[in-house]
Amino acid sequence: MELISERGYRRTSLAAVAERAGLTQQGLLHHFPTKELLLVGVLEARDRWDLASAAAYSGASSTDTLAQLVDYNATRPAIVQTYTVLSADSVTEDHPARDFFESRFRTVRESMAAALRAEFGDTLPGGLTPDQAAPLMVAVMDGLQLQWLLDPEKVDMPASFRDFLALLGRDAGQDDGRETP
Amino acid sequence: MELISERGYRRTSLAAVAERAGLTQQGLLHHFPTKELLLVGVLEARDRWDLASAAAYSGASSTDTLAQLVDYNATRPAIVQTYTVLSADSVTEDHPARDFFESRFRTVRESMAAALRAEFGDTLPGGLTPDQAAPLMVAVMDGLQLQWLLDPEKVDMPASFRDFLALLGRDAGQDDGRETP
Repeated sequence: MELISERGYRRTSLAAVAERAGLTQQGLLHHFPTKELLLVGVLEARDRWDLASAAAYSGASSTDTLAQLVDYNATRPAIVQTYTVLSADSVTEDHPARDFFESRFRTVRESMAAALRAEFGDTLPGGLTPDQAAPLMVAVMDGLQLQWLLDPEKVDMPASFRDFLALLGRDAGQDDGRETP
Repeated sequence: MELISERGYRRTSLAAVAERAGLTQQGLLHHFPTKELLLVGVLEARDRWDLASAAAYSGASSTDTLAQLVDYNATRPAIVQTYTVLSADSVTEDHPARDFFESRFRTVRESMAAALRAEFGDTLPGGLTPDQAAPLMVAVMDGLQLQWLLDPEKVDMPASFRDFLALLGRDAGQDDGRETP
């Protein structure tokens, strides 16, 4: 993760990771046979840490926790870049990370649906169920990351994510004079 | 575009494109020096055709036109795959398609904001302005494409996009007994 932050996704090589980790390249390849699988390992570790942070961040609604996660992501563009590139790349034929992402998206949609149900009940604005809103929430997070990585001056990812929460009926928590219909 | 549809993004080579187009590889490289730039050309052509189709599809609201575009995309996974992989890849260092996507996203956000303003006025649900809703709409389209490409059995992209339009206050147009709050 250090190397990705320093060099970006493209320029992080297995050789450099082996050197930083104090392993031979063969030793690293024993654990992670390809760069893609190494990066999947990095993203799995990030998911575990983020889950632990979310569990530690008590006393707030789950959408608050998600908004905090988006805030945090805005401070770590290199790992967001890795996630964005690798998740998109995984849709290509026979990609080694395809199973990881297919399974991760199913899990994330289910846990978001459960969180939305706990916070909003069975009916959200527009008559949506939590199961219908969950893939939209995931899509907004992923799609905003792409726009923000390309154009951080024009796209305020944390503010845009809160705009989406306002669509779901959350008070934006901003004293900006806007009325919620 | 034919070759991408037949083989997918990863297996479409410059050599195969040159052969199909009846050009020498050197002749093709004269117009498109790299595979990335050739694919940008493909995506630009798609944008032009989609715009022409949208203009021809008169008598409907702009969100109807977008919903139709999402329906159409669900019939052409190979070009959606190309868009998804290349747009994400473009966030990496010095990528040849970066300028294209940065500029395309700015244009798309602006035209969506104008379309939303024309259809909904200056205030959308949640107190959002059209300028705030536009990046969310783009994010939903991109994020749903990724989830759908990975898991077409579980993700109904056209239905999910209409769920998002319902969040924006559009009648879903489905007689499913749901109430809009």
